[in-house]
Amino acid sequence: MRHFADRLLAAIERTAAPVCVGLDPVWEKLPEEIRAGLEGAARTSLDGAARANPEHRAAGLMAFCLEVIQRVAPLVPAVKINIAFFEPYHAPGLLAYREVVKAAHEAGLIVIGDVKRADIGSTSQQYAVAHLGALGEGHGYVHPDAITINPYFGTDGVLPFMETARDEGRGVFILAQTSNPSAGEVQGLELADGRTVREAVAELIGGWAETSGMIGEFGYSSVGAVVSPTDVNAARRLRVLMPRSIFLVPGFGAQGRTAEEVAACFNDDGRGAIVASSRGVIFAFAEQAYRSSHGDDWRACIAAACRAFIDDVRRHGPRIGAGGGVPGSPSTMK
Amino acid sequence: MRHFADRLLAAIERTAAPVCVGLDPVWEKLPEEIRAGLEGAARTSLDGAARANPEHRAAGLMAFCLEVIQRVAPLVPAVKINIAFFEPYHAPGLLAYREVVKAAHEAGLIVIGDVKRADIGSTSQQYAVAHLGALGEGHGYVHPDAITINPYFGTDGVLPFMETARDEGRGVFILAQTSNPSAGEVQGLELADGRTVREAVAELIGGWAETSGMIGEFGYSSVGAVVSPTDVNAARRLRVLMPRSIFLVPGFGAQGRTAEEVAACFNDDGRGAIVASSRGVIFAFAEQAYRSSHGDDWRACIAAACRAFIDDVRRHGPRIGAGGGVPGSPSTMK
Repeated sequence: MRHFADRLLAAIERTAAPVCVGLDPVWEKLPEEIRAGLEGAARTSLDGAARANPEHRAAGLMAFCLEVIQRVAPLVPAVKINIAFFEPYHAPGLLAYREVVKAAHEAGLIVIGDVKRADIGSTSQQYAVAHLGALGEGHGYVHPDAITINPYFGTDGVLPFMETARDEGRGVFILAQTSNPSAGEVQGLELADGRTVREAVAELIGGWAETSGMIGEFGYSSVGAVVSPTDVNAARRLRVLMPRSIFLVPGFGAQGRTAEEVAACFNDDGRGAIVASSRGVIFAFAEQAYRSSHGDDWRACIAAACRAFIDDVRRHGPRIGAGGGVPGSPSTMK
Repeated sequence: MRHFADRLLAAIERTAAPVCVGLDPVWEKLPEEIRAGLEGAARTSLDGAARANPEHRAAGLMAFCLEVIQRVAPLVPAVKINIAFFEPYHAPGLLAYREVVKAAHEAGLIVIGDVKRADIGSTSQQYAVAHLGALGEGHGYVHPDAITINPYFGTDGVLPFMETARDEGRGVFILAQTSNPSAGEVQGLELADGRTVREAVAELIGGWAETSGMIGEFGYSSVGAVVSPTDVNAARRLRVLMPRSIFLVPGFGAQGRTAEEVAACFNDDGRGAIVASSRGVIFAFAEQAYRSSHGDDWRACIAAACRAFIDDVRRHGPRIGAGGGVPGSPSTMK
């Protein structure tokens, strides 16, 4: 079975785009066309209920995500689907999430399930089966190619995810440094030995990536890390601590990471990171810059924003192939 | 609207049992009676499929949990339902989780949804709506009275949960110290200022509990903490750092916390903690000690184990009412 890391890196090279589009659908922000159609139907069947039925809303999220997938699939190697945006719609929401995963696969995309799960070991095993495992696939359920997980429990909290991912040819991205304003409150705490919590977590991830039996032909592990660097030096330090991990880098665009910070997440072989943009692409149709070119054609706005995002990352981000792309030797020299 | 902390503390005093039973149903461990019935049905409809249909399994988990609820509802104030054990069964699993929440409510129990969610602020808002919010309740969905959440993102990752909980009269329990063997790898890291990560997190939780507008008539906040102390001194330090938080204490029994460690989680007013036991109660029918008294009556084994658990906590744990139960003044003096 091919390693997740190899599949992802090959898809990135094929598209020459080390990016993924984040599907974070928010009902209130969906195009009027999608909301109106469903709200019309809801009005009839719901007898004037103030809030739309979760089934109708979940169907709206799904319809929107499928449209986004159609527009971005020719351009990018992967999408990241955040399950949090589906969970408010309960079982119908979860079915919609699975349908979006399936549609992305059918469109040839690699799928990262942004689920941020973790618990004590025996419980993480349940989450691993749910989000990475084979159980239920015979009944029409599909799984993402990788998921995000939280490191707060330490090794036994993440091990079941890594083992299941390895057995299934899938991957994990473990939170090291998140992109939110208060991330530093815990992740930035200074340790007695001079490191920060995020660096200690990065060292753990570096160890897991090395020893979990998930290193592929390019020298990268299917144990990746979520890294949203606050500055260039922090990114470089994390790069050294996790030489074999692919960084999933959120926060480009809406959350304010600079091109230099993103560039520092790549290795000298031009590999080692995949940059995510969510709102900046999928809700581009609400921005004047895109409306002035594409008017009410929200699909065209999304495609244009996706192209602009890729151009941005290509211009400022990695030097793809710069290091020659020697299999088996990610360079950590920046 | 009554505060969650007040509802929980009143229920604990009513039952004189500062405990909750953890519903962590594992298909393979369910009583033969429940598995056989469903597997029989599955055999017919699934045409010899090796694995049972997720719908049948979810129905089995639900049937089992409803039986447990019937046996423990007369004895305990609350149950803790871990959603991880339902997620492997996808949408049917999630429906089963909601049905178990509903059945526990109908049996008069307070329900803690052990979901351990967290993300960046705007995404946590989605999880908050999903697990604590009002959206969808008009369509037959119910929510737990409180949920567990993960602190790795800092303030903006937990704020939406606290605000939603406050608006809905619900609560949160934020992970401070978990019960798994490798918990110390991150939570036990020593900081430059002499604290540990878990103490720094506890200080954050103490601040959130104080300032979130969720302090009830007993002086306790609806912002609680998950604390599984590794030793008595650690428990006392965390107790001082989070004087107004109710500790949800897992790991009694199966995970090996001692009575002294559990006792140190309570305040001198006899309040301030709720001790959880999961496997030790719900799978008691697999243990010789209970089988020798109750034979194949698995329901009786569960009831007996629940009574033994309560006796254990009463004997060694808190001194309920010892401090006089003065409203508005949890004592942190140990």
